[in-house]
Amino acid sequence: MDQKYHQGGFTLPGEAGYEQLTLELAKKWGADVIRDSDGTKLSDEIVKAGYSIYSTICIIRQHNAFAAQHPDSQQQTFLCSQPVVACGDTLVIEPMKGYFAEQFQLNDSPDAMPYWQVYDRTANTELPREQWTYADGKVTLTGCTPWHEYTVSFLCWRIWEEINMYNHTTNHWTSEHLRQLDPRHPAAWAYLQQWLENWCVENPDTNVVRLTSLFYNFVWIFGDDLRNRSLYCDWASYDFTVSPAALNAFRDEYGYALTAEDFINGRKLQVTHMPPTRAKLDYMAFIQKFVAEKAKVLVDIIHKHGKLAYVFYDDSWVGMEPYGEHFAKVGFDGLIKCVFSGFECRLCANAEVPTHELRFHPYLFPVGLGGLPTFAEGGDPAKDAWQYWRNVRRALARQCVDRIGLGGYLHLTIGFPEFNDAIEQMAIDFRRIKELHSHGAPLCGKCRVAVIHTWGKLRSWTLSGHFHETDKHALIHINEALSGLPVEVRYLSFEDVENGALKDVDVVINAGCAGDAWSGGDAWKSDKLVEELTRFVHEGGAFIGVKEPSAVSGYHTHFRMAHVLGIDKDTGARICHGRWQQPVSPAPFALCESGLGSDASLYLTDGNAAVLSEKNGVPQMTLNRFGKGYGVYMSDFKVSPESTRMLLEMLLHLTGVEAKELYLSDSACVETSYFPADHVLVVCNNREEDTEAVIHTPAGDVKVSLKAMETRMVEM
Amino acid sequence: MDQKYHQGGFTLPGEAGYEQLTLELAKKWGADVIRDSDGTKLSDEIVKAGYSIYSTICIIRQHNAFAAQHPDSQQQTFLCSQPVVACGDTLVIEPMKGYFAEQFQLNDSPDAMPYWQVYDRTANTELPREQWTYADGKVTLTGCTPWHEYTVSFLCWRIWEEINMYNHTTNHWTSEHLRQLDPRHPAAWAYLQQWLENWCVENPDTNVVRLTSLFYNFVWIFGDDLRNRSLYCDWASYDFTVSPAALNAFRDEYGYALTAEDFINGRKLQVTHMPPTRAKLDYMAFIQKFVAEKAKVLVDIIHKHGKLAYVFYDDSWVGMEPYGEHFAKVGFDGLIKCVFSGFECRLCANAEVPTHELRFHPYLFPVGLGGLPTFAEGGDPAKDAWQYWRNVRRALARQCVDRIGLGGYLHLTIGFPEFNDAIEQMAIDFRRIKELHSHGAPLCGKCRVAVIHTWGKLRSWTLSGHFHETDKHALIHINEALSGLPVEVRYLSFEDVENGALKDVDVVINAGCAGDAWSGGDAWKSDKLVEELTRFVHEGGAFIGVKEPSAVSGYHTHFRMAHVLGIDKDTGARICHGRWQQPVSPAPFALCESGLGSDASLYLTDGNAAVLSEKNGVPQMTLNRFGKGYGVYMSDFKVSPESTRMLLEMLLHLTGVEAKELYLSDSACVETSYFPADHVLVVCNNREEDTEAVIHTPAGDVKVSLKAMETRMVEM
Repeated sequence: MDQKYHQGGFTLPGEAGYEQLTLELAKKWGADVIRDSDGTKLSDEIVKAGYSIYSTICIIRQHNAFAAQHPDSQQQTFLCSQPVVACGDTLVIEPMKGYFAEQFQLNDSPDAMPYWQVYDRTANTELPREQWTYADGKVTLTGCTPWHEYTVSFLCWRIWEEINMYNHTTNHWTSEHLRQLDPRHPAAWAYLQQWLENWCVENPDTNVVRLTSLFYNFVWIFGDDLRNRSLYCDWASYDFTVSPAALNAFRDEYGYALTAEDFINGRKLQVTHMPPTRAKLDYMAFIQKFVAEKAKVLVDIIHKHGKLAYVFYDDSWVGMEPYGEHFAKVGFDGLIKCVFSGFECRLCANAEVPTHELRFHPYLFPVGLGGLPTFAEGGDPAKDAWQYWRNVRRALARQCVDRIGLGGYLHLTIGFPEFNDAIEQMAIDFRRIKELHSHGAPLCGKCRVAVIHTWGKLRSWTLSGHFHETDKHALIHINEALSGLPVEVRYLSFEDVENGALKDVDVVINAGCAGDAWSGGDAWKSDKLVEELTRFVHEGGAFIGVKEPSAVSGYHTHFRMAHVLGIDKDTGARICHGRWQQPVSPAPFALCESGLGSDASLYLTDGNAAVLSEKNGVPQMTLNRFGKGYGVYMSDFKVSPESTRMLLEMLLHLTGVEAKELYLSDSACVETSYFPADHVLVVCNNREEDTEAVIHTPAGDVKVSLKAMETRMVEM
Repeated sequence: MDQKYHQGGFTLPGEAGYEQLTLELAKKWGADVIRDSDGTKLSDEIVKAGYSIYSTICIIRQHNAFAAQHPDSQQQTFLCSQPVVACGDTLVIEPMKGYFAEQFQLNDSPDAMPYWQVYDRTANTELPREQWTYADGKVTLTGCTPWHEYTVSFLCWRIWEEINMYNHTTNHWTSEHLRQLDPRHPAAWAYLQQWLENWCVENPDTNVVRLTSLFYNFVWIFGDDLRNRSLYCDWASYDFTVSPAALNAFRDEYGYALTAEDFINGRKLQVTHMPPTRAKLDYMAFIQKFVAEKAKVLVDIIHKHGKLAYVFYDDSWVGMEPYGEHFAKVGFDGLIKCVFSGFECRLCANAEVPTHELRFHPYLFPVGLGGLPTFAEGGDPAKDAWQYWRNVRRALARQCVDRIGLGGYLHLTIGFPEFNDAIEQMAIDFRRIKELHSHGAPLCGKCRVAVIHTWGKLRSWTLSGHFHETDKHALIHINEALSGLPVEVRYLSFEDVENGALKDVDVVINAGCAGDAWSGGDAWKSDKLVEELTRFVHEGGAFIGVKEPSAVSGYHTHFRMAHVLGIDKDTGARICHGRWQQPVSPAPFALCESGLGSDASLYLTDGNAAVLSEKNGVPQMTLNRFGKGYGVYMSDFKVSPESTRMLLEMLLHLTGVEAKELYLSDSACVETSYFPADHVLVVCNNREEDTEAVIHTPAGDVKVSLKAMETRMVEM
């Protein structure tokens, strides 16, 4: 094995007090960079050892003294009280009741009160301002309608930075609660710039400032009852960017005022999984611009000191979507993404930024995100690492990043030599794959897939957070399956489709539940969208619908694309209608039925679609010829080696590509990527056992024997 | 045993050629009436044997010669073509494609054509009349929008009476297809009156004319493809009452015109299970008035000849709902209902008419409704009869009818002596129960239950047809369970509730799916309804919600009564919200979890409701204290002895009634009714095995041993 695969592109978390371990593992894993982590420090011995140095900064969090002096510089949010039923014409509501008092503190300041709202939730109307008063944490309502429910929407300070709060409450930390500053506050912003300036001066050995991350955390609302601690958690909502200053600035810029209800939204808040209101879209654009402007100032300070600025895409990331309008203009030198899954790799790899780096899992921590042990009694970090690597490797084989690395407490690896060996092997395999990419892209079928949903490119690959946070949505399963397939993938909004974006697309996928952002909700009321997709399929394209694709009420079918799919869903009005009895037809590709659903309300529209799978006599997967193209329906999709293989074969069938053109194996567990420039086929065994497989190639079949999890480079 | 229980109140289907059998079974079953059936005749020997005689007439069906001479006197309906996608700006649609040509024939007459409509189903707009032409069974459209779907709604003649069509196609009959006349056609109406007049003269021995039934069949649309023969079947829709004459008369009376789309309704038709439009309600009232007027004329003719007029509530029953505004005024002397279930017994028993009669199942026919053998090889009619009797007996014990009987071909009972014995025993038990009722009503808990839904009293007890036709709806299971419980039951519309109908109600039940007629759909947008129910529970009432009770979109909760229930359903926008972790609490009554659902999207609103049952960590049944009352939620309900018992105990718990007050047994399979006037307790063993049970009474427990299916009268 060439020595060049043993060094470079690897970021190691160093740890003061474990200098020898740090240097040993740096050598073993071929690190060129050493970083600190939240909770660890680097000693001089490490810093001076000849490695490039990353230093982690959470810019808004390390300033409790300033926050104490300027409590109005802290961040805020809107909250809504629990609803209370009026038994007479007056009512007293305690807005904060049920919320975690260590996270939130009422903001009843003069600039905040105009943004408070009392709502009659039964009548869906705001109670006039003159009918309520506030004093001592309580709101008193008069002139209520008996038996109606009322709520109070209010502003409050967030007095505990949420990641710190999470670590405290989960790991029983006892250190001081860290607060967070709002860069929109002029004094705070001046302070933060000066603080960064000073920091750069004081840390001459740092080569890369690793921003973890920017200003506003994803929304995470805690309750005071341990039976329901996490009242709300949305990885892509904007509630935590709110303040009277922000709202006033928005009003000045956009010419209309936002209200509490624009955020509270009938107590549901503005969940990323649902289509946004126009006001939310405007507000997102407003915040994204602000975040980018402020981020650029920080990056410029870092650059001025001869350092690079990398940004970590997690935690306080809100407003800096890598596929947003402003991201490329901020001037970041690198984007770092922690990865459990293949889709996260693709998300990072395709962002417009010079350096792309993955932080692998498991994090060097006693427990993982789900609370199970990793580097502790009962944990098996090597096994965890191989699982995540299996997800990530297939994505890397399609589109590579520049660097990989780890994070956490390095000393925790002591006693887990299998983990250390696993990382060594992954680093080697990563470098070999990276080299192949540097000579030219891997072979991709002439199958160009467009996933269409409300957010389009902005939320390419991801929905809102990690896989396990969004795994109730079919689309994340689709995205994960696609992340390692030899097809071109892009993400389009419905507007993109209407504006002609299907001109170089072969297959469209729409996967979601009725009314959600992934299916599309009211976007499907656009006749233009339906016309364009109908034309697209009739002329030879394919439309794959999963779960409740194109669903919206008010039309003669529930799925607007029912005429293309040949299947629709009854929402009650068709319970007296007959159902077509259609026998199951053999599928023209390997079927994986295990991830399909069992929706009893599906029905064939005209009896022409081929039923590929059924449950209790109800079709769950269909293939329908429409014009020169196809409609494919699946009642659900759960990612697995077999379902991924089915999706691949389906895509190839729909576009007329043969397996041998793409050097595919005959096994769902053995995935391949062919690099024509080097005539090298990367063969990945996704099983933790030795495996044999036959690779179909244009020059005939090739048999390979692979070790467990092996990455084999085969010269063709 | 008193001989008086061996005779009377029984209608036997006689059969010419089987005179001895007829008289033998008349004696065995204690018949006082002999009837003919569809397909049988009575001979002089039978008619003169001293029994009262019923003769069956299907008034609109026995006139093929007249129909041939006056084809425009036949009945009609609206149909809608299959939707067709336009690939360019013109399109040809064959309206009749896919429909059964033996049932339907296009009506392109000058009075029909103005009612045809061409629709752009993509844009939800009607194509202007000048953009389409009709010729030779085809409609040609111009100026289409490419890639839109179009349909043609049209009038057609129904040229085969649907019950005859069903018997033909199911039993391979080869006789002439029977046609049906529309009494709205003046010539047909004059003819029918004269025909009935003549018939009465020619049948002097007939005591009771058994009308089977009136004019308009329930809607049953056949397709031409055997894979989907029954395209649509709704037992309570009004489509088959339509004609240009009816539509014109409606316009003249109501001042606005109905269109095809009022019936076609986006190709869904107006399913009884969905809330009606205002136009449908008006049209129903219009038809009900017409049917009652015409029925009264027929009844008067029958009365003039000294005969009684009974009406059978099935088949061509549309417009004569027994709980409709006009039913009592028609002057019927009896209502006959065929019964599989307890709810059908209650439906009949409570109608405002002098005589109530049940026609038991199985019908004396080789096969049953579901197509399985009854009086044929492989059939077990005695077993079937006992099953239906078990359902009906418990309802009879609550509210009795005047008569029972059978129908069909009597000779088929030869070789089934167990069936004949079973009927004999049931007739005896029926007469004993009837006698008890004649001395005073059975004891009823001070628990007054109101089932609330869109149709209210009009559809008391039934939804739309038999149990097996509507068993996907939770409410029919509830109704069936209630039909034999010692509680008062009434059916209220939402308007009734708003107008104060809860003043003498203890428990309200709302059971259905979001948007359907049983849950209520948009009716729940009424604040007044929510206020009234909230007040009702707060002051001590109970609200039982099943499946998606009070569900409507546009509010802060999906269930409008979520504040009372303590549970709600997430429709997607709350996927980022935390869920209360609530351990399961012991229920204050015997739980039956088997009929509950497994809805993963339910969530506790405030963590206060007691979870009585859960599935995969999600509550499926809850009990919530609200003010002085309760909210109870069940995610589904399937009728069974155990679930029925649970419902009873729940109702008693909610209203503070003790089991011993009602003389209840300790077994779900042993039901009781106490008749205070006679101090007699009717104890029914619902098992086909011998059983022991303990009866709780105010005077202490009583132990009883019962034979299989026994009806025991215990003197207290």
